[in-house]
Amino acid sequence: MTTRIKPVEWAEGIVRLVDQTRLPAQYVVEEYTDWRQVAEAIQVMKVRGAPAIGIAAAYGLTLAARQIDASEMPAFRAAFGDICQSMAATRPTAVNLFGAIERMQRAVSECETPEAARARLLEEAHAITEEDYEADLRMAEYGAHLLKNRFGVLTICHTGALATGGYGTALGILRLAWEQGKAIEVYACETRPRLQGLRLTAWELQQLGIPSRVITDSMAASLMASGKIDCVIAGADRIAANGDTANKIGTYSLAVLAHYHQIPFYIAAPLTTVDFNISDGSHIPVEERDPREVTHLGEIQIAPEGVRVWNPAFDVTPASLIEAIITEEGIAYAPFTETLNAQRAPSRGA
Amino acid sequence: MTTRIKPVEWAEGIVRLVDQTRLPAQYVVEEYTDWRQVAEAIQVMKVRGAPAIGIAAAYGLTLAARQIDASEMPAFRAAFGDICQSMAATRPTAVNLFGAIERMQRAVSECETPEAARARLLEEAHAITEEDYEADLRMAEYGAHLLKNRFGVLTICHTGALATGGYGTALGILRLAWEQGKAIEVYACETRPRLQGLRLTAWELQQLGIPSRVITDSMAASLMASGKIDCVIAGADRIAANGDTANKIGTYSLAVLAHYHQIPFYIAAPLTTVDFNISDGSHIPVEERDPREVTHLGEIQIAPEGVRVWNPAFDVTPASLIEAIITEEGIAYAPFTETLNAQRAPSRGA
Repeated sequence: MTTRIKPVEWAEGIVRLVDQTRLPAQYVVEEYTDWRQVAEAIQVMKVRGAPAIGIAAAYGLTLAARQIDASEMPAFRAAFGDICQSMAATRPTAVNLFGAIERMQRAVSECETPEAARARLLEEAHAITEEDYEADLRMAEYGAHLLKNRFGVLTICHTGALATGGYGTALGILRLAWEQGKAIEVYACETRPRLQGLRLTAWELQQLGIPSRVITDSMAASLMASGKIDCVIAGADRIAANGDTANKIGTYSLAVLAHYHQIPFYIAAPLTTVDFNISDGSHIPVEERDPREVTHLGEIQIAPEGVRVWNPAFDVTPASLIEAIITEEGIAYAPFTETLNAQRAPSRGA
Repeated sequence: MTTRIKPVEWAEGIVRLVDQTRLPAQYVVEEYTDWRQVAEAIQVMKVRGAPAIGIAAAYGLTLAARQIDASEMPAFRAAFGDICQSMAATRPTAVNLFGAIERMQRAVSECETPEAARARLLEEAHAITEEDYEADLRMAEYGAHLLKNRFGVLTICHTGALATGGYGTALGILRLAWEQGKAIEVYACETRPRLQGLRLTAWELQQLGIPSRVITDSMAASLMASGKIDCVIAGADRIAANGDTANKIGTYSLAVLAHYHQIPFYIAAPLTTVDFNISDGSHIPVEERDPREVTHLGEIQIAPEGVRVWNPAFDVTPASLIEAIITEEGIAYAPFTETLNAQRAPSRGA
């Protein structure tokens, strides 16, 4: 994996998107010419990972701007605003989605003609992607300092190239530590119900040549008790101002288990994942998804007919269980309300 | 489910066994005339659940006794001893397996002819089954006292009729509490990798009409944090003299999570599951099973080719995390070395 794999790319009026639901069995790139296809790809998780969702939304809106048949700005803005609302309704938890949409709307507000807006939106989508990629590279530099030679690291879900602008958050840190010559061993939770760990993280770790093993989510506690794990690193879908972190369901479980086993638990995410507008995690909406994600594997039913399921896609880990939050601006320790705020770029500060 | 479902039955020289790997899609009863088929059914988990494994082994040995072509006791005993060793090698963790085999060997040692032994072994296998069933009924009476009206109860794996002599351990307690009119709601962990919770517990709870929901194992922490869980009840595959308990992988995780959320964590198992010969859990061998259980679902490969997996079938929960152990003789609290020992029947006492 020396070449950069992007989850979403723009190619002359077409959005190209890796269908992550078909990995690792098939590597399929879909091509979209309608923003509604992009919105649906986000909703059904063909593209997933908080930063990648933001990037997909940005390119989707770039496509939308070309579909809007308006020569005057008021009509263009109204139509674009409606589409932004639809795009924002695809998934409720990851804040990068809303951040990207806001940024695209701000870009439109600074343009005087639809034609100018269309060009500007493409620039903005490219910028969102590149800034995320650069942020991940800087985050990896900071995060790799936390990993010592021969560390066993446990992670959950998938936080690599396909989940981001092309490098990775938690997985980017592991990648850089490995490239620095640290003999790490990575354990990946399979991450039910969608198995991103088993399908995507295991696959990306194989590509990178990093020694790794997959466990079911239920094995994490035993693995920690065995002494093989020196730290846990997870990504994030939204971080509240106080450090409370929403991430893939099972993350909170790992944080509690790490606390009990006295193992440091880290979150790695770009500052775009921090929602400074909410004081704590109680304000983060947690998406509940279709029970079929649990009762079926693809089209195969594995549960009895009519079984009831609770299927929250995320959980919220309280800041008290988080040793540090690694961003592109450094390693933030508690109290996160202060340390995360201090990392905000001056232009974005309060 | 008013009729008693038995995982294993004897019918005129044939062992009939419900293939639990095919549930809930199909309810298939297989018929065996060779003890080797029974041993294989244990190994591949067509029959599972510690008490049911013991019962299956007992009937398997009954079958074996009829297959041994020996008219003199020395030859019969030698052949039977060899078969007992093979039967004991099927699965290493559940102590009920070894307990049942020992009991069958003791029965043979008291017989003077192969013919007498064959008759006696059948009686013994029936006795093992009926004693387990009766023990579960008594255990349920004790355990149901711990459940209050409107309790939310979390459980793992499958501990119902098919895992036992026909009633159930942890699930038997829930069943009786429900029949007593307590409006409980049961949450079942799906229990990767073999999904006994999603396939078997959900199915049995449906049959019993008990309100229930399935969660992935990774959701247990969030569920506890939500306040919906009042206690956790799990079964056991082997309990050391000090109360350390081996059970399905993920049980230890639930115990740690329950501890953090200040929720009582109970183990329910017959005294045949207590191994008084070992002082603590460090002496319990934990079976590691085929990586395919994680990487495949049936014949479908869900992981990348060549991925490495760690697949322990059980974990060991330290006694310090267990609020009480419920047996057919009552509810044992710490220190378990004393309280469990006090529950041993006089004939089995030290």
